[in-house]
Amino acid sequence: MEVTRRNFKESLNAVYSALEEADFLAIDGEFSGISDGPNVSALTNGLDTPEERYSKLKKHSMDFLLFQFGICTFKYDQTKSKYITKPFNFYVFPKPFNRTSPDLKFICQSSSIDFLASQGFDFNKVFCQGIPYLNQEEEVQLREQSEERRHQHANGVGTPSFISPSSKGPAHVPEEHKDFINRVIFYLFLIAFFCSFPTRFQRKLIYQTLNWKFPKGIHVETVETEKKERYIQVIKVDDEERKRREQQKREREQEELNDAVGFSRVIHAISKSGKLVVGHNMLLDVMHTIHQFYCPLSGAFVLFLHEIDLQDFKEVTMCVFPRLLDTKLMASTLPFKELITNTSLAELEKQVKESPFKSPQVETAEGFHSYDTAQQQLHEAGYDAYITGLCFVSMANYLGNLSRSLTSKRYIPYLNVTGPDLQPKRDHVLFVTFPKEWKTSDLYQLFSAFGNIQVSWLDDTSAFVSLSQTDQVQIAMNTSRYAESYRIQTYAEYVKGKHQNKEKLGQTPKSWGEDGWRKPHYASATSAATFGYPRYTLPDDDEAEEKESPEGNDAEGTVTWQQAPAVHGRKGQKKKKSKGVFFF
Amino acid sequence: MEVTRRNFKESLNAVYSALEEADFLAIDGEFSGISDGPNVSALTNGLDTPEERYSKLKKHSMDFLLFQFGICTFKYDQTKSKYITKPFNFYVFPKPFNRTSPDLKFICQSSSIDFLASQGFDFNKVFCQGIPYLNQEEEVQLREQSEERRHQHANGVGTPSFISPSSKGPAHVPEEHKDFINRVIFYLFLIAFFCSFPTRFQRKLIYQTLNWKFPKGIHVETVETEKKERYIQVIKVDDEERKRREQQKREREQEELNDAVGFSRVIHAISKSGKLVVGHNMLLDVMHTIHQFYCPLSGAFVLFLHEIDLQDFKEVTMCVFPRLLDTKLMASTLPFKELITNTSLAELEKQVKESPFKSPQVETAEGFHSYDTAQQQLHEAGYDAYITGLCFVSMANYLGNLSRSLTSKRYIPYLNVTGPDLQPKRDHVLFVTFPKEWKTSDLYQLFSAFGNIQVSWLDDTSAFVSLSQTDQVQIAMNTSRYAESYRIQTYAEYVKGKHQNKEKLGQTPKSWGEDGWRKPHYASATSAATFGYPRYTLPDDDEAEEKESPEGNDAEGTVTWQQAPAVHGRKGQKKKKSKGVFFF
Repeated sequence: MEVTRRNFKESLNAVYSALEEADFLAIDGEFSGISDGPNVSALTNGLDTPEERYSKLKKHSMDFLLFQFGICTFKYDQTKSKYITKPFNFYVFPKPFNRTSPDLKFICQSSSIDFLASQGFDFNKVFCQGIPYLNQEEEVQLREQSEERRHQHANGVGTPSFISPSSKGPAHVPEEHKDFINRVIFYLFLIAFFCSFPTRFQRKLIYQTLNWKFPKGIHVETVETEKKERYIQVIKVDDEERKRREQQKREREQEELNDAVGFSRVIHAISKSGKLVVGHNMLLDVMHTIHQFYCPLSGAFVLFLHEIDLQDFKEVTMCVFPRLLDTKLMASTLPFKELITNTSLAELEKQVKESPFKSPQVETAEGFHSYDTAQQQLHEAGYDAYITGLCFVSMANYLGNLSRSLTSKRYIPYLNVTGPDLQPKRDHVLFVTFPKEWKTSDLYQLFSAFGNIQVSWLDDTSAFVSLSQTDQVQIAMNTSRYAESYRIQTYAEYVKGKHQNKEKLGQTPKSWGEDGWRKPHYASATSAATFGYPRYTLPDDDEAEEKESPEGNDAEGTVTWQQAPAVHGRKGQKKKKSKGVFFF
Repeated sequence: MEVTRRNFKESLNAVYSALEEADFLAIDGEFSGISDGPNVSALTNGLDTPEERYSKLKKHSMDFLLFQFGICTFKYDQTKSKYITKPFNFYVFPKPFNRTSPDLKFICQSSSIDFLASQGFDFNKVFCQGIPYLNQEEEVQLREQSEERRHQHANGVGTPSFISPSSKGPAHVPEEHKDFINRVIFYLFLIAFFCSFPTRFQRKLIYQTLNWKFPKGIHVETVETEKKERYIQVIKVDDEERKRREQQKREREQEELNDAVGFSRVIHAISKSGKLVVGHNMLLDVMHTIHQFYCPLSGAFVLFLHEIDLQDFKEVTMCVFPRLLDTKLMASTLPFKELITNTSLAELEKQVKESPFKSPQVETAEGFHSYDTAQQQLHEAGYDAYITGLCFVSMANYLGNLSRSLTSKRYIPYLNVTGPDLQPKRDHVLFVTFPKEWKTSDLYQLFSAFGNIQVSWLDDTSAFVSLSQTDQVQIAMNTSRYAESYRIQTYAEYVKGKHQNKEKLGQTPKSWGEDGWRKPHYASATSAATFGYPRYTLPDDDEAEEKESPEGNDAEGTVTWQQAPAVHGRKGQKKKKSKGVFFF
């Protein structure tokens, strides 16, 4: 279902009931850009620590706009033995609510816009019909302002302090406004009148004069025409009528406020449902969702009191999405990593249709757009959410008895990894610097004697190179000793140098354990969420990380996916139960 | 004529010939936003100095995108006694040229986007079909790269230095690539073959091997399919055929480069034409035009060697647009300011249809979209350019014998004010600070005893207030002495305070003449340009400025518009003749 400003209100109930009945839902976002700093491939490096990845995305991605939000709900129908899906495709745009509301600026990245254009993306739907939204602070502010105006109106309005600082009676009416106010009083002999919009000061005078002359029998209201012309409507009424009209006015204002909260209401509903939310490589989606609809994580254009660090972000995420699962992470972890060669969404979707997986049985609910995976509509958020959900079901079915546990609503399989972030071993990683003309192929050439390597670019003149064998590190170091055009450091040397630089800048260096691991302090947990870009591209690396995982792995270190108690229902979900480890 | 990427190349000749035959042309731009700093009304203050205005716009407006560019050419047809107009409406978008070209980021401002959306603006035309462009540096870089590639190809390519630093013969072929290269040589027994795209290193090996084995008889070329898949095409040819193919390839590359230069070619053509360019409140249009299509003035996202200051900007502008005229400035200056009450484009267009002005006789050239001013299509750039031209003709006709002088191509009336920027007297201006709750009406209230005032907001808690009588300044100052909620300074005190702050920051204070004016150093001039937002809102102010204007005013200080020798033709226009004063 395509949802824009035009059909948003009438679609809300369909959204709510889809969320209510869903066993789980998948989400996806489309953005006006990815990186305002380094180029996209350099933005998130395979060897980033969680802090680095989060900080980079926060710094370089939050000023883009999440302008299309896809939700696809999945509900298992036992009689049909299939999933009933309800895909929604929302267009979102921060249309200013009124002349005093924040005028948001966002960045567009030409390559992203051009890419979406080539996929047939409809920008007019975003910019002309996008559903508005407010974050929580903006919503609170607007509600407070509205309350304050109502209060002021009820009690009469104060005048600027330099005119009559403590006046409770009518304000002193300056000479040049006396005519105007007399006309206002004169007109009140008629039943009602409209006054073309006066200045703020004149408006105050009107309210005051009327409150003073007719303390009960007048209803005053600001009316805005479709052409944005504003009038003051003044109507003589009896007490009952006045109350009725004030009630009407309050209701109208409440509705306008709800309209302004707009798409955020959908996110609030997802959050309240407590349902499992699945996404593919969803860190950026979750960051943007929280940034736009809850609290700004960062931003050149946004005033905020303090930066949200990774720990804060995790806590907010746990509140907003108590249960998250990333299909890219899932596909990159045992047992799936041995079955799936390419974890991009499009490729994953193809692979989980083939043996040993099975295409899940799905049916689109009546009245919803039916997607055909043969005609790929990738990069429409609703479609991407739909196939993300399909991938999840296929993989979960492979693990066995998913549908039963989902429908029984007692157990949900998800990655239950808790505790502080792990700092993986990087013994096999080299930090290489070289002339800016070098390309990846030059690095492959340089290390051609060492077999398979993995290159993670840092900037124009440096990269991490992961060797497949740790014992080759010393050979590479020795070989490079006399090289002039390039330079090699071990990962440990690189980190030490970085910490020394930080120390110079007055920061405390982090402590490292003897074995190169920072010791995690485990916390007991009943709920956890995990998502992100997997960085396990090398077998050594993966095993090391899995071995250190305090929970979620059995003794053999092979099974990462296990059944764990679900946290469902509305109760307590806003309370942080524990902290989870985020895999980036 | 609506011009997008789809019909750009076939429309270029129509653009060129319209410019060639035009007596003058009008331009207008639509942007993705106006201000990324203070709100739009505070961005440009009526009392800004030229430096301040330029600096503010440079700092807060250059990261938006000029995405619709309107040009309307006007040619006087003597037989018909009317102007023949050719309006063009270009959609512009910085589509990346290839994978190595800059990935431009630009800011969108919700209010601007929402406003354009409400006017029926078609964003899909911009983002999906916008004409690409390059600034001069990007163009030079791309042409150099292309030249370099050609040169490398002709001479064989060097290998990375760590393999064979001084090799002129074939490169050392590493063991794992030998099979590949042998296959390449083997295939050359066939007539031609395609090679699916190899790594950069393999590509080098191929080029070298082929150059070594077949120094004359091979044509090698990189081919990109529509799906962006790249191949190397290798064809055995004789010497003549090889030359022919290389010539073809060069021409194709040149055409691709010209396509990448795209819309900038239109701006270059305007510049080369040397024709009078008219705009309404055109400072921002000119700044954006130079920023996007010539040299970045500033930018958070653009790497640049040095900031372009006001003086640099003027010099660049004189080169790019040797003759500029701003209709808003014209309408705000004598004799028009006494006839025209509202200088916004829409209102001006209405007023110059009425007595004492006359609607100009115009006719749209065949094959061009005919605009109807009764059905206002304001904020389509082509339409705005069209009515800007109409306003210019009406006002110029009022001054007399415009059409004759235009058609004779000997004299063009324009503001010929030269010399350094004037620093106008601000004796009647007060600098007022107050609590942030204050609105304009509070200021009107505060100064209600002083008759008509003008308020120019600086920020939330300060504004310039211009009194109509200079002798009231002292009264206001005295009255404010005991005020607690607000504070008043004279303009001179304010400026002094500002300079003292600058001095503290290590900057040299500017010298001021005894009479409060900085002495201008006049330069003789044969050409000048002027445009911008007029700040003459008070009679005193206007007269003061006009009195000091070294040229362009007669002794009575009443006529600002006079005939002056036109600078036309292509000769010498790229040479800076003199500097002009820009009125902001």
